[in-house]
Parts: sequence; C-alpha cells; structure tokens
Amino acid sequence: MRLVSYRHNDAPGVGVMVDDTGFVALNNAAPDLPSNLRRIVAMEDGLSRAAAAADGKSADLTFDDVDLEPVITDPNAIWALALNFRTHIDETGLTTSPDYPHIFLRHAKSHVGHLRPLLAPPPDVGQAFDYEGELAVIIGKPGRHIPKDRAMDHVAGYSIHNEGSVREFQSHNRQFGLGKNFEASGSFGPWMMTPDEFGDPYEKEIITRLNGRERQHEGVDGLIFNVEALIHYISIGHILRPGDVIVTGTPGALPPADDDIEAQIESHVDDGGGVKYAGRVHMKPGDVCEVEITGLGILRNEVEADLPNAYRAG
Amino acid sequence: MRLVSYRHNDAPGVGVMVDDTGFVALNNAAPDLPSNLRRIVAMEDGLSRAAAAADGKSADLTFDDVDLEPVITDPNAIWALALNFRTHIDETGLTTSPDYPHIFLRHAKSHVGHLRPLLAPPPDVGQAFDYEGELAVIIGKPGRHIPKDRAMDHVAGYSIHNEGSVREFQSHNRQFGLGKNFEASGSFGPWMMTPDEFGDPYEKEIITRLNGRERQHEGVDGLIFNVEALIHYISIGHILRPGDVIVTGTPGALPPADDDIEAQIESHVDDGGGVKYAGRVHMKPGDVCEVEITGLGILRNEVEADLPNAYRAG
Repeated sequence: MRLVSYRHNDAPGVGVMVDDTGFVALNNAAPDLPSNLRRIVAMEDGLSRAAAAADGKSADLTFDDVDLEPVITDPNAIWALALNFRTHIDETGLTTSPDYPHIFLRHAKSHVGHLRPLLAPPPDVGQAFDYEGELAVIIGKPGRHIPKDRAMDHVAGYSIHNEGSVREFQSHNRQFGLGKNFEASGSFGPWMMTPDEFGDPYEKEIITRLNGRERQHEGVDGLIFNVEALIHYISIGHILRPGDVIVTGTPGALPPADDDIEAQIESHVDDGGGVKYAGRVHMKPGDVCEVEITGLGILRNEVEADLPNAYRAG
Repeated sequence: MRLVSYRHNDAPGVGVMVDDTGFVALNNAAPDLPSNLRRIVAMEDGLSRAAAAADGKSADLTFDDVDLEPVITDPNAIWALALNFRTHIDETGLTTSPDYPHIFLRHAKSHVGHLRPLLAPPPDVGQAFDYEGELAVIIGKPGRHIPKDRAMDHVAGYSIHNEGSVREFQSHNRQFGLGKNFEASGSFGPWMMTPDEFGDPYEKEIITRLNGRERQHEGVDGLIFNVEALIHYISIGHILRPGDVIVTGTPGALPPADDDIEAQIESHVDDGGGVKYAGRVHMKPGDVCEVEITGLGILRNEVEADLPNAYRAG
C-alpha cells in the first residue's frame, strides 16, 4: 500500500494510491479515520482500516487535483544522517565516527511534498544549494531500546527524501543548524510505501537526477549504519514514536562525464564555506530534481527562486 | 501576563497565572480559545483575549492539580544555541565562529514541564547528564528576513529552559544529534511571560542551582549573539512561526568553593567523551535542579532514573 498526505480545498487529507497519480481519499472512504497520516500510523489498526476502506475502489482524486504535502506533515522528530555512505565521506574529505551514527535534526517546515517547488535561496543569501537523495524510514510501532533484530517490526513504511542543504550556512559553524533547515529546501514523498510492498531495502538503489542527468546512483546496501542500526541507536536515548522519520543519508556524486563541464569541479572549500567536488552541481531556479528509489517511486520537484531578501512579517 | 500549558483529567489546557501557583483555566474562562498556547499565540488577538478572559478572576486550578507541560508543547522548531557565552566557551575549550551563531535543533519530546521529572539515563547508557540554564524566547508574529531593530516585535514572550544534555552521546560524533535530544532530558517553563511584564532581558540574570547550590550565575547581557541577532539570523533562512522557540545558550559554571569537593574537577575529556571542567557537577537521580531567571521565575525539576536499558515496545 502507498499512502499520500495532501491538501484539497484547504483541508488536509490522506489517500491510498490506486495507480501512480490517482488515489482513494480516506476523508470519503473512511471518514472515521484521522485526516493525518501520523495519527493513522499511530493507531494499531489504522493502516489495515485504510487498506480495507480503499479496497476495490477507483481513484476519486489525482495529483493534479491537490497539493501534496510531506508524507508525514507533523512528526515529533526528523532524524537525519550525515556521512553515512563511504562515497560521500570520501568526496567531502570530512570525518565521522566509525562507531556511532552522525545525527542531526530537521524540522517539518524545511520540507515540501512531491511536485511542490523547492525554494532556492536568494543569491546574496546562498548559492551552494544542493540535493541529497535519501531513503526515509517512517516509524510505526513506538519503542525504546529496540534491538536490531526487532527494529524492522517498528517500521510503518518507507519514502524518499531530498535532503536539500544550503552549504554556506551549513558551514557557518560546527553544528549544521540552519543550513540543513532552510524554508522549503527539502522534499519528502511522493508517498509512504508499506514494507510488504517495498521488500528488502538493501536490494534497492537511490538515483538522483538533476535536469534529467544522473548525479547520484548507489545501492541502499552502501549505508554504513543501516536501518536496523539507526533504529537501535536512536532508541537508546529516545522513544521512537509513530510518524518519527529517519532520513538515512546520501551517497556520493557520480564522476562527471567528459562533456559534463558543469560538474568538473576540483574538490575544494569555496569562499562562502561551501564544499564543492567533482560531480556535484548546485540546484538553481528552473532546475528539476528527481530522486528515485527503485521499487518505491520518484520524488520530483522543480526549483523556484525564493523571494528577495527583504523583511516580511505576518 | 504569565501563561502555562498543562494537562488536567487527561485533557490539554492553557492557564493565565494569578499568583505563583494558581491560574485561571482558559478552557473555562474563554472556551472559544484553543487549548494550546502555540495556537493562541498564532492568533492576532489571542493573548489579549486570554488577558481579558482572566481579568479579575481568581484561580480555579493550581500547580498541585495538574501536570505542567513544556510551555509550547508542539513547536515547529526549537532552535538551540551552543557556545553563546564567553564563560562557557572558555571552560569547554571548544571553538565557535565569531561571525555566526552556533545552532542545533531540539525536538519537543526531549522536554518536560515545570515540576515534572527530568530523566537521568541508565548508568550504562550515560552518566555525564548536565544542566544548562538558559533564556528561551517564544516567537509570536511570524516573519522572514527580520532586521534586528524589528526583532523584538516578533517576540510573544520569554521562558526558562534547562537544556539538559547527555555529554557522552553529544560527543559520539561531530553533530550533537541524540545527546541533545534524550527523552525528557530537558525542561521548559514554568510559564511564558509577556515582554511588557518581563522588561529588558539584558538586565536579568540566569542562576542555576543543583540541590540548592549555585552552579551558574551570569547576566543575560553576556550573550554573544543576543535575542535580536538570533531572530535576525534564523529568519534569513526560515520563516519564524508563532510558537517557534529560540533557546539562547548557557553560561559557564561558577568556580567551585573550597568545600565543594564534587566540583573540583580538572578540565578534561573523559573516556566516555564527555567534557568535564571545574564547577560542573552532573545530575543524578534524586537531585533537584532549579533554573532561575530574575524577574521571570524559577523552573524546578527533580531528577529521576530512567527505566533500565531493556527493550520496550508500544
């Protein structure tokens, strides 16, 4: 089963996909269920009731009718991984512990849904605005001190994450802070796919395309700390809750092709503090970024220019 | 005006304080207002309606009747500051940028309210569990690219934060991640005080006491990046929203007195990776930690042992 979060006529809704763009609106098919995927996931029988309500029905809405939202709109926590693929560690030249995952947080409003615009900062604010294609894991059953061999019992589903980053701000100080949390800088979607349908995550591949050209392409089995290890580690300190999201980390860039002038950048730290390296191309207004995870789907976002750098209240 | 968030008979509520422990329950006095302080703050006339509803009434509940919650229970973002007092930078020997604030995020469930227990990790998980007394700023009017000279127009009120930290986990990798987000490791309260009642924050002092002994005591004017600078900086990248919280950073420890054996620790990094230094004493089950900000109040929490390190689901 694949579930989407959306807004339609200014009201929130959750849908069960029947094909790649059409879905059964649970507000109609199961009006007793909450209009919020986190709250459905938190119910012991929420996903099975959603499946039963949608069973055999045809789509009553499509992606053209609605604004898709981040799959989980209001998680308690979005745990994100830095430097969790060897290829990304190597390309950045950065250090990370071999013993412990490298974790920071994102907040909900730093993301948009599938097909909604990513916002590139005004040029005087930041120009090193980068994609990061990643597998997102959504927690179902809550738990604490979860052993690795029971970790997968706590997964409600999987999704795709573009962990968009403003490198200049990420480099302002040692904690990533604001650079990983710019307004609408990342995306999360299109849907949550349940584990029975997704299968073994380590047989899948992450592919990021900018304007149709592959920029990242690596197997999920390249994760240094895998899904089980991350669930175990985070749950040592925190009750993992229904709807908590773990964004598992991004692979390195593909080497540039001979004709790929834009990507032929020597590895260096530029004046603004952003790390550049061969194969990485920043996102600019007008670009289209797609993150595909095989067997899961494609998360697609155009890039728009954020509003100019002027005071805006209210 | 001082406002509290609480649960009573398993329902959420917001109260307007009439003395230091009694309050008018807005669920009774203003049933049209939301039972959620973030949502009241988000209304243009929310705080004035709360004040009018409570005006002249006597308390109908006290702190003994309820469980106090973190002042804002469900913020979109809690922005926290590392190394924002010279005294704290000096005692840790850590580096920070002189040009940009050092920001990380906390999530809501890493906090409890006033008088609720802080949870000390099981000893095999972490022992360097530290208080950090801090001034918290709660955003009212939303805004982006807010200039410093208009920053204070966006403050709905102030509160007190104990930014409790598990140093071993904070040191596991370069991003603080989990070490700053242990379950119930911090506290936030007792109330939000509106700016008209609080006055000039830079004339106030932060005092942290562990078991009655002062461990931190410094003026808010010691902030390196002050409230206006932090609001300006964060709003460059993010729409500051009603109920967003900025936790402004903690001062250094007081030097230990001659009879204060527990605090006479040489500055060093211990085997677990925790930074210790003279004057800092970790929190243990049975301790009582108070953070006072003069003119604002006292945030008080006992420390309890978290449950043993065993798998817990559901």
